[in-house]
Amino acid sequence: MLFFTQCFGAVLDLIHLRFQHYKAKRVFSAAGQLVCVVNPTHSLKYAPTRCAAAQASPEPGILPPCHHHEAVHDPQLVPCTCPLFSCPWEGHLEVVVSHLRQTHRISILQGAEIVFLATDMHLPAPTDWIIMHSCLGHQFLLVLRKQEKYEGHPQFFATMMLIGTPTQANNFTYRLELNRNQRRLKWEATPRSILECVDSVISDGDCLVLNTSLAQLFSDNGSLAIGIAITTSKVHSSEAEM
Amino acid sequence: MLFFTQCFGAVLDLIHLRFQHYKAKRVFSAAGQLVCVVNPTHSLKYAPTRCAAAQASPEPGILPPCHHHEAVHDPQLVPCTCPLFSCPWEGHLEVVVSHLRQTHRISILQGAEIVFLATDMHLPAPTDWIIMHSCLGHQFLLVLRKQEKYEGHPQFFATMMLIGTPTQANNFTYRLELNRNQRRLKWEATPRSILECVDSVISDGDCLVLNTSLAQLFSDNGSLAIGIAITTSKVHSSEAEM
Repeated sequence: MLFFTQCFGAVLDLIHLRFQHYKAKRVFSAAGQLVCVVNPTHSLKYAPTRCAAAQASPEPGILPPCHHHEAVHDPQLVPCTCPLFSCPWEGHLEVVVSHLRQTHRISILQGAEIVFLATDMHLPAPTDWIIMHSCLGHQFLLVLRKQEKYEGHPQFFATMMLIGTPTQANNFTYRLELNRNQRRLKWEATPRSILECVDSVISDGDCLVLNTSLAQLFSDNGSLAIGIAITTSKVHSSEAEM
Repeated sequence: MLFFTQCFGAVLDLIHLRFQHYKAKRVFSAAGQLVCVVNPTHSLKYAPTRCAAAQASPEPGILPPCHHHEAVHDPQLVPCTCPLFSCPWEGHLEVVVSHLRQTHRISILQGAEIVFLATDMHLPAPTDWIIMHSCLGHQFLLVLRKQEKYEGHPQFFATMMLIGTPTQANNFTYRLELNRNQRRLKWEATPRSILECVDSVISDGDCLVLNTSLAQLFSDNGSLAIGIAITTSKVHSSEAEM
């Protein structure tokens, strides 16, 4: 009897480990994953943006650091968070997603793991590739930006923002993964809240940064595939603070 | 009988999966790992190097691309591979390690996973942090270099070279991992052979690249901890080709 109990325990352990093993070993592969082709948008907002307008104007042509959460005095209303355009819209955080979809036509994808396929990487800076990602009951905004921080030397910056508060953002971890030609680059971090301006995240360099030569190594025919996964980093019982 | 055979198979599968699971799940953690403090060396070789001398001289002050394996005509002799100094030494590949240890005083560490703790990251470019790593029956050279590819904008480049031939290097995968402040950056690639010049790997950007702001995010009191792991990527029956 003891032998059968042990066998049964071993089989259960086996099933559990097989699941854990494949979960841990799971590697980005386009096969079987949702691949979203994202076309570039030439960024139009190189006039001071709404989030910059609240601050002292810096040199023209240089994107200023900006902190939405400091500029917003009414906690019920947030300005438009679209990083592409200067937009006079403001509204509640709950309707930001529908505003981004309807007004700025940003696509939204479902799934814990998706592949973001950015096309036409050769286009000159400034260029943005943007998509929304719906996962674990929340919406995230993925921004890939080609920008010349140093004149004549474009770099690529990729980050993920939660369309929610900073406290909610702390509950998640996002992973961006590039995988090609026997090379793999992974970036894992806590997403920032959309209430913090994406421009400040990129100017701080607190994101996945690729110089042109690395971007070319990971690109295939001018397209860059970024595997995206979001996990819960901790469980908050009082998550619904919005 | 069939039942016992199945049970035995399941137990074997269990042992294999448990091993694979922990191997896949293993995450860099300083606790319990060999931490090696590596002091910086201000690079002295900004005159054309031995590997550059075989090629047309480019602008002074800019490190030229160089390919040792093209310049070496006698396959039995290789020049000194130390990235720090111009050195007239040449010898067999088997004695490169003892030359690096004895003449250039580069330390050697044993272990599949080590932590490379580079101190004084604030020192001006060009600066190198170098160590040898003995693992899986081979020796590897880890080079972290602070260099100004674009004037006034120092970057950090980290790569691993096998002290062996390119064919031997293809059998391995190295991983460099930075982990601090809820951020993680991993770079995985096949090591290059020491017969290819480290300068060309860095100028191609085919390595872990950090700009100053990312390096600061991962640094603690001016020191940067890089977790290093080496694995075998495939098994060659005729590995001993040296």
